[in-house]
Amino acid sequence: MMTLGVGMVGYGFIGRVHTLAHLSLPLFYDPLPARTRLIGVCTATEASGQRAMAQAGYAFCTTNFHALLERDDIQILHICTPNDTHRDVALAALRAGKHIYCDKPLARTVAEAEEIRALAATVPTVQQMTFNYRFVPATMRARQMIEQGFLGDLYQFRAAYLHSGYIDPARPYSWRLDRDRSGGGAIMDLGAHIIDLVRFLVGPGTGAGRGGDFVAVSADLQTVIPERPDPRTGQPRPVEVDDIAYVRAHLEGGASGTLEASRLATGAQDELRIELHGSRGALRFNLMDPNYLDAYDATTPEQELGGARGYTRIETVTRYPKPYALGVTKNTVGWLHFHIQSLFDFVSNVAACLQGRAMAPWSPDFADGLAVQRVITACQRSAQAGGERERISKV
Amino acid sequence: MMTLGVGMVGYGFIGRVHTLAHLSLPLFYDPLPARTRLIGVCTATEASGQRAMAQAGYAFCTTNFHALLERDDIQILHICTPNDTHRDVALAALRAGKHIYCDKPLARTVAEAEEIRALAATVPTVQQMTFNYRFVPATMRARQMIEQGFLGDLYQFRAAYLHSGYIDPARPYSWRLDRDRSGGGAIMDLGAHIIDLVRFLVGPGTGAGRGGDFVAVSADLQTVIPERPDPRTGQPRPVEVDDIAYVRAHLEGGASGTLEASRLATGAQDELRIELHGSRGALRFNLMDPNYLDAYDATTPEQELGGARGYTRIETVTRYPKPYALGVTKNTVGWLHFHIQSLFDFVSNVAACLQGRAMAPWSPDFADGLAVQRVITACQRSAQAGGERERISKV
Amino acid sequence: MMTLGVGMVGYGFIGRVHTLAHLSLPLFYDPLPARTRLIGVCTATEASGQRAMAQAGYAFCTTNFHALLERDDIQILHICTPNDTHRDVALAALRAGKHIYCDKPLARTVAEAEEIRALAATVPTVQQMTFNYRFVPATMRARQMIEQGFLGDLYQFRAAYLHSGYIDPARPYSWRLDRDRSGGGAIMDLGAHIIDLVRFLVGPGTGAGRGGDFVAVSADLQTVIPERPDPRTGQPRPVEVDDIAYVRAHLEGGASGTLEASRLATGAQDELRIELHGSRGALRFNLMDPNYLDAYDATTPEQELGGARGYTRIETVTRYPKPYALGVTKNTVGWLHFHIQSLFDFVSNVAACLQGRAMAPWSPDFADGLAVQRVITACQRSAQAGGERERISKV
Amino acid sequence: MMTLGVGMVGYGFIGRVHTLAHLSLPLFYDPLPARTRLIGVCTATEASGQRAMAQAGYAFCTTNFHALLERDDIQILHICTPNDTHRDVALAALRAGKHIYCDKPLARTVAEAEEIRALAATVPTVQQMTFNYRFVPATMRARQMIEQGFLGDLYQFRAAYLHSGYIDPARPYSWRLDRDRSGGGAIMDLGAHIIDLVRFLVGPGTGAGRGGDFVAVSADLQTVIPERPDPRTGQPRPVEVDDIAYVRAHLEGGASGTLEASRLATGAQDELRIELHGSRGALRFNLMDPNYLDAYDATTPEQELGGARGYTRIETVTRYPKPYALGVTKNTVGWLHFHIQSLFDFVSNVAACLQGRAMAPWSPDFADGLAVQRVITACQRSAQAGGERERISKV
Repeated sequence: MMTLGVGMVGYGFIGRVHTLAHLSLPLFYDPLPARTRLIGVCTATEASGQRAMAQAGYAFCTTNFHALLERDDIQILHICTPNDTHRDVALAALRAGKHIYCDKPLARTVAEAEEIRALAATVPTVQQMTFNYRFVPATMRARQMIEQGFLGDLYQFRAAYLHSGYIDPARPYSWRLDRDRSGGGAIMDLGAHIIDLVRFLVGPGTGAGRGGDFVAVSADLQTVIPERPDPRTGQPRPVEVDDIAYVRAHLEGGASGTLEASRLATGAQDELRIELHGSRGALRFNLMDPNYLDAYDATTPEQELGGARGYTRIETVTRYPKPYALGVTKNTVGWLHFHIQSLFDFVSNVAACLQGRAMAPWSPDFADGLAVQRVITACQRSAQAGGERERISKV
Repeated sequence: MMTLGVGMVGYGFIGRVHTLAHLSLPLFYDPLPARTRLIGVCTATEASGQRAMAQAGYAFCTTNFHALLERDDIQILHICTPNDTHRDVALAALRAGKHIYCDKPLARTVAEAEEIRALAATVPTVQQMTFNYRFVPATMRARQMIEQGFLGDLYQFRAAYLHSGYIDPARPYSWRLDRDRSGGGAIMDLGAHIIDLVRFLVGPGTGAGRGGDFVAVSADLQTVIPERPDPRTGQPRPVEVDDIAYVRAHLEGGASGTLEASRLATGAQDELRIELHGSRGALRFNLMDPNYLDAYDATTPEQELGGARGYTRIETVTRYPKPYALGVTKNTVGWLHFHIQSLFDFVSNVAACLQGRAMAPWSPDFADGLAVQRVITACQRSAQAGGERERISKV
Repeated sequence: MMTLGVGMVGYGFIGRVHTLAHLSLPLFYDPLPARTRLIGVCTATEASGQRAMAQAGYAFCTTNFHALLERDDIQILHICTPNDTHRDVALAALRAGKHIYCDKPLARTVAEAEEIRALAATVPTVQQMTFNYRFVPATMRARQMIEQGFLGDLYQFRAAYLHSGYIDPARPYSWRLDRDRSGGGAIMDLGAHIIDLVRFLVGPGTGAGRGGDFVAVSADLQTVIPERPDPRTGQPRPVEVDDIAYVRAHLEGGASGTLEASRLATGAQDELRIELHGSRGALRFNLMDPNYLDAYDATTPEQELGGARGYTRIETVTRYPKPYALGVTKNTVGWLHFHIQSLFDFVSNVAACLQGRAMAPWSPDFADGLAVQRVITACQRSAQAGGERERISKV
Repeated sequence: MMTLGVGMVGYGFIGRVHTLAHLSLPLFYDPLPARTRLIGVCTATEASGQRAMAQAGYAFCTTNFHALLERDDIQILHICTPNDTHRDVALAALRAGKHIYCDKPLARTVAEAEEIRALAATVPTVQQMTFNYRFVPATMRARQMIEQGFLGDLYQFRAAYLHSGYIDPARPYSWRLDRDRSGGGAIMDLGAHIIDLVRFLVGPGTGAGRGGDFVAVSADLQTVIPERPDPRTGQPRPVEVDDIAYVRAHLEGGASGTLEASRLATGAQDELRIELHGSRGALRFNLMDPNYLDAYDATTPEQELGGARGYTRIETVTRYPKPYALGVTKNTVGWLHFHIQSLFDFVSNVAACLQGRAMAPWSPDFADGLAVQRVITACQRSAQAGGERERISKV
């Protein structure tokens, strides 16, 4: 079996999650598309790198990501650092011919994302985004059903990603609130996920009637808590990004809907909700209830006493398709699984690429990363223009 | 249109509910099977009777129920008094040739119930029980589906009626805790409803595979709080009936299941739950969520990602069959509706009886009342014998 | 006890619901603020009027609403006719000195609403809107909690009223789709309810931090299905109103949020959802689950294993405040109850008015009706201007 | 840091889950109590062992478990084989002085379990059961709350573990249906989990009023599908164990409740439900909804409109106590996590044991394994005696 060497750039929370996913692959899938080996990890401090070696068995650590790119035994590079570093790491990794697995968002701006995508298009490696919510059994099943025409013509959609982590005004300032480092607030961090999910479900290639890519948005980005204490000085520092993003969006085929991203949704944990209403049916998913996809078949005839009409809570649970192999499939799935399945998809694609086989059809590549960025930027521009409708150019 | 005069024996909570149902009929159903007119009400005190006249428009009141039986313009008699009066009122009303609508339970004991039923069988009037939970859109739909074979062979059932009204040991003693007046505790008051509901759904005439009438039970009746303050004296008085009833039950066709009735289910409001598991499907209902019937079709093929398997929350809402006519049917239904529909069913039956037409197929008659009583009594006997299995003779 | 004569203008679905509410009052409340007597009903056809007399006991019927206004024994007038008649009936009723109970919306346009309101302000009668969702136990409890400071500063809100009645393009044209008769589509019919509910919960007088009245909106009104068959000719006829309304709204105190009204939300029955996120807590309600108010207390300290943090499903059930008196309060409530409680509030106000007492604090009057109309009109203007932000002038 | 060598006996589904847990520990916990190293694996066939080596990195494989016991570099032995092997492996491992982590149940019979426990009591190693449902954040939180007196006096409990894997009569015979190999059916396989969970939550050491250990049961064990096709011959073979177990159980302190284990609960996936009703509060958990613990505080005063009464859905999510360290704690948890936390608890105990520190207070040891076995056996005896109440002797 093929073995692929892994270099990890960044070992914060998300870097550790990606690392755990590598260690988990051999027990989750049978047969494996390839084995992966944790070779090098790049961190901001030597101490973090040592920790990664001890925890996960990386063979070496470095504070310079180029040290990973130089290694021939590293074929795969993960980008798990803050948004402002994505461009430089990605460009260098592409030049070094690495397969890249980049945590969302692709970059801070459309300009950066276009630069990355333009180079990527010339490099015959796998360049994949970590849009992990494509890899929930429930969202995969939704895509399958939509491809089979379950929705009919899409009338409208409603997507929201609600967090409450910033409701306390005393929560200190961090890089996520610095526009230059993060590229944006809720719309960038949370919005990226739901923009991708709408595209995944009813965007290009899904066959959804009245769906297709985003063509226009109108947005209102709110900064409700205007300043937060600087953790170093304790002094108030202005927040430069949005706490809440409200978006009305239009798809190429005519359907419209709303996107909402919030860090001030008191009471929410990790509440990603999506609802799709079509002429033949409706689909509904909530990330806090990840074991079920709710599906409503509107072609069931109306009857007294309700007949058979209603939302079916499809028990998607751990029912991943083969070669998922971790035993019985009736057990509940949790957040980490989606990352593991997402990485599996990426590793499968790398193996396929090296063997000249086609890639998996649902994998999000850098063109998807760029498309999401275009929507985010359009929202930011619209908000700046007082909510004016902003057109989105084609990728 | 035919007009039927109504006599109401008892005007406590349940008497008022029955009264309200009469006033509501003309606005809920179109065409009406018959008009009803509130003529006389019998109460323990003159004051209550005056109140009933003022509130609901009864033409007269009395403290002697015979005064109602003597009236020719009263065709329908409601029995809404405590359990220890049911026998005398019912027997007299039967002798007077009245149509009877008797709130559950039929009586305190099998002996009383048999006596009532024996006489009833000789009188050509409608004698109907108020088993109002047969008249929830969701339970009606369940019955419909079961008749159509949805469950296949019944493997098991689970029925519970959970209240929490008695969790405070300081709640005073009342007639419901007096064995002689009530005939029993949770098993009598709450158990009667679920015993009837199991019979309604998978009992005789439903066609449910392995279903049929109750043939044996084994029960444990617990009195957790052994005494309560007498409201007159303030002194502790022994509780003579069960707080909690646990029952294992067996149906004629071989299926088994459990019944549970509790007044000590902290956190429960009016929690009647029923779950039925069969070889082809499952059905589930909870009275606190009365607008939906959950149905699981196990004949749907198993698939990766869950396919289409899962419970469908059939939106039964207010979707009563015609002549229910109160406008749009998408609005939520609440507890009072079930009493209104139950009374509609009774009045329809009286009209049918008077016109020589067949009665509605799902109406609970006194034979059903007696059958429920047999199960209750068998539970009481089993509990007294330490949980020994008690056979239930056929009606 | 005082007796109030009732005149009903309109006896379609909503007229029948109001009528039923009158018949129900005496059994639901004890003591009653006043008795009401159904005297006259005005309908488009003589046949409907006869039906109302037969069903509900109205003493007479007419096809000319002035016949009701002339009667001295009619103190209360209900307006239950299509929107285009509200202005004329309301003005005449005000001139006749009647107490008015007007089903929402107050009128078709701000101009009409202002005219009505201006006259109303000079007439010392009770003029109340039927905003029935103020009278759900859950929304009443929400208002109570908000007045007590439960939310702290309001960060954002999300209100939606979702129906699916129009998803079939073959559903015929009706007056509701005629802009001149209805004044608007989803935003008028469904939007009115949630605009009022947001005002009721966090609007003027609620004390909600950052709340207050609506000051600006930006809206997108979509007509997804552009024509429908005319029921008389069978020919396609252009739909003149919105199927779906997306609104971003801003309150006087700074909070923002979204409103959505849809007739194309496949899978929805009568899905009114409201969510409020504040600095100290969050509240959530769904009309399809009307027995509970979800409340999240964010002042509970965060702890390992979750501590005690989470949404509490407050069991509002039938727990109306006194003099609600229909027995035990643990039973489920359904849609009709809210109309009964709303009418009770109105009748109480009329009695209070006649006795020189203060009116109930939460009753929606014609100023509220006008305020809602202003928001609707602002949404229509904003949509026409491509979503531009539209300011809302003070009443 | 201490390193502990691991020997795994059995590498079926559960063996792979335990193995995955070992690989995951270093990324989930910081600091680790000890590092673990996968050394040897014992499987029925050489091929399985090779697979385990390739998948998980075991250093060697064997088909003779004694080969693991002989190794000095193996301190920890996992028992993940069918029930009929537990006794021999456990006794030998105890004699070899290994720390043992034994998947439930401890053995097939009380006699076997007593033999194991008797020897274990003389060996100063850690002997722990895999009762993984003690390690759900929600059940851990429940235990915490109960220890703090949340329930007050326990009135009753209701525990069920519902599966549907056997609803198809064509599902072939397997060792689980062979009484001699499995020791029992649903009561053994599923019942063991809920018996343990009831003991964990309200059993000895929890301080729950009216709780304590099981003292008596009355059971009905049903074999609904009496024979199944032998996978080798295709011929029907009699099923020797129960499909469904219904149990009424009594605790030392006086509380009673029900246990139900079923393999025929059509519509159930992995439905472990537990409900506890006490004088001061109630707790509720469902394994299919594992991110929440429902808690009802009955000491909240009753009020109009519900006040603040209701079940709080405590968001236990991934909120494991420290040293759990896998980043943010708002993400959903799934079934595998509970095994990882359970293994963490065991490894912590082994480290504590070797360092002379006290063990964790909630760990299930072999005395717990034996106690569960006593309840199972009592259920089997009661069922054989027609449901007679069977006393359970103290361990």
